[in-house]
Amino acid sequence: MRLHQKGELSILRDLKEKFNPLLKRKDSGIIVGIGDDAAVFTCPNEKILVTTDMMNEGVHFDLSYTSASQLGFKLVSVNVSDIYAMGGKPKFIFLNIALRGDVSDEFFWDFFDGISIANNIYGLKLLGGDISSTINDMSVSATVVGVGQKIIKRSGARIGDKIYLTNSTGDSACGLEILKKLSSRGRNIIKSYGFGIINKEKRQQKWLTLNNTNSKNIKLDFNNAEPLIKRHLMPVVRYSEEINEIGTSMIDVSDGLFIDLLRVCDESGVGARLYLDRIPISKNLKYACKLLNLNPYKLATSGGEDYELLFTAPDGIYPFKDVVSTPANSSSKQLSITCIGEIIPNARVVIALDGTELPLRAEGYQHFGS
Amino acid sequence: MRLHQKGELSILRDLKEKFNPLLKRKDSGIIVGIGDDAAVFTCPNEKILVTTDMMNEGVHFDLSYTSASQLGFKLVSVNVSDIYAMGGKPKFIFLNIALRGDVSDEFFWDFFDGISIANNIYGLKLLGGDISSTINDMSVSATVVGVGQKIIKRSGARIGDKIYLTNSTGDSACGLEILKKLSSRGRNIIKSYGFGIINKEKRQQKWLTLNNTNSKNIKLDFNNAEPLIKRHLMPVVRYSEEINEIGTSMIDVSDGLFIDLLRVCDESGVGARLYLDRIPISKNLKYACKLLNLNPYKLATSGGEDYELLFTAPDGIYPFKDVVSTPANSSSKQLSITCIGEIIPNARVVIALDGTELPLRAEGYQHFGS
Repeated sequence: MRLHQKGELSILRDLKEKFNPLLKRKDSGIIVGIGDDAAVFTCPNEKILVTTDMMNEGVHFDLSYTSASQLGFKLVSVNVSDIYAMGGKPKFIFLNIALRGDVSDEFFWDFFDGISIANNIYGLKLLGGDISSTINDMSVSATVVGVGQKIIKRSGARIGDKIYLTNSTGDSACGLEILKKLSSRGRNIIKSYGFGIINKEKRQQKWLTLNNTNSKNIKLDFNNAEPLIKRHLMPVVRYSEEINEIGTSMIDVSDGLFIDLLRVCDESGVGARLYLDRIPISKNLKYACKLLNLNPYKLATSGGEDYELLFTAPDGIYPFKDVVSTPANSSSKQLSITCIGEIIPNARVVIALDGTELPLRAEGYQHFGS
Repeated sequence: MRLHQKGELSILRDLKEKFNPLLKRKDSGIIVGIGDDAAVFTCPNEKILVTTDMMNEGVHFDLSYTSASQLGFKLVSVNVSDIYAMGGKPKFIFLNIALRGDVSDEFFWDFFDGISIANNIYGLKLLGGDISSTINDMSVSATVVGVGQKIIKRSGARIGDKIYLTNSTGDSACGLEILKKLSSRGRNIIKSYGFGIINKEKRQQKWLTLNNTNSKNIKLDFNNAEPLIKRHLMPVVRYSEEINEIGTSMIDVSDGLFIDLLRVCDESGVGARLYLDRIPISKNLKYACKLLNLNPYKLATSGGEDYELLFTAPDGIYPFKDVVSTPANSSSKQLSITCIGEIIPNARVVIALDGTELPLRAEGYQHFGS
């Protein structure tokens, strides 16, 4: 069935039935859930954090290689990432969904399955939103409300602080490169996995074949390509109490490591020195970049959408030991944390692999960039 | 200059400069404003209300007769309306704006002027959002955070309560009919007014000429047509302490009087009896409907986007006296309040002008309606 055969009222009734029963926890502070003019809750003893992020068809996502559930999952993750990057914990989510009327019922509920899975991982409750029709492209956005005690701003970096990065960057941008080069058969395989992409038993493929305009096709080992693709389509963002305790400034790497570090410098009124040889490159990124003839350092420093945490902390705290990331309801996972540079008075520089000092320039993704 | 020549970072810097200086009021509870990963504030002693609403090009608005400032103004109003309809007061607003790269700088700032003017009227502070490019249609959404003590839900209507409506409905739907029939010259006149549409000195027109496919063109007196058009393009929504004190249930009339009353009935588990002859019809609506051959009662009961308050209150409180609407920073205005029916056990009926009892049916606007 198509949405235009169903009508908004009937869709809203179904959504209410799916999501409102999840709101019964007494300690959540919820007074009014889905289905009134506004949601109502209380947060008497905590600071309240609010962020909102949007994803537009053709700009942020391509439905030829993205399933509806992957899209829903990522929409939640990118918003939660902003709450984590301030040291907060996400509590409530609100959605705005603009869909063409010819979208199938299946696509719609697949999208909300992705939302539900992410909500479970992050401990979020859906409290409201707006569903509307659109003429051409889909547009989806979410607003996440979180709570926190100690807030870590972009403006807190101090001269002498060390600069740290969780896990590694570049994987998501490389995953996107792979997806763009996939044949339509390959794209359908990725889409059909949905969340099954995590489940190796369901997978028959050993190789992914990429179209290469200049020479013969490239074959990538699925075991290496899958984590890169997953990082792009279904990023899981992580929260760490330890980072929250010692961080002086923090940002999530959404547009690129360089551009996001420059944002911290601008807000804190300081400079930074990065060491390129310290920037972690995952083994999968190394492998794929070699076959695709890409520079892994370029992807790691300027590729966006990894949603890793970039933070500063006083000197002497490194090395970190046993830092655990703990999104609610999810198995905890140890975070790898790397010191990649230091905060200095004014200059913003990067020490290249050959030891030369180069200016650090914003090269990440900008909307409306010329 | 076009947005794609400017770049996102430069746009965000300009927005921060425009809106962050407004956040300095000490009593606002704001800890972090625009420019970090999330906004942060405290609301220790009040209930928190959150609502979000979206407007899509080609579905909710048509730029051939809507100026950017009118669009920005209406986006704020429709969201504030949901907070007022729960008995709350709006405090903070977050925006998601998806624009084509070829949109002009002028359009962009005109849009934010509309946002600013509305924010001033309603006492709102812009605390954050997301700006992105889009391929085809514009999509704009807002999330408004409000606070309140007594919350009025849709579910509070009790048998024996009277049903009340502020001002009158149908004007917005009639304004839309006029706009759709306007020649391109007429549309440009309306757009060029921007907020000047309020300012009679600037206006030279005495008549608006509408295209009529079936017969000769229709001429409408501008003095009658203007309030209808304004209600559609720039609705001002109003808050009343008095209604808040006595209301048992409330909703804003966004999709149509009948459909929104049925929502109250559904949530409250009650029926309703409306009297068509009590439903107020503005003199301008009467005038325009006569010339356009439209049924004013149909527009008043099924036309959307008036954003008047529909509420129930115990019998005996009517007639209201001197009910004052007081959005912050705006001149207060007396609200007209009419009793249009009563809450009954089960049936949902309307008493027609000839005294016959008819079933009350949802006939307002539904997205994805077949």
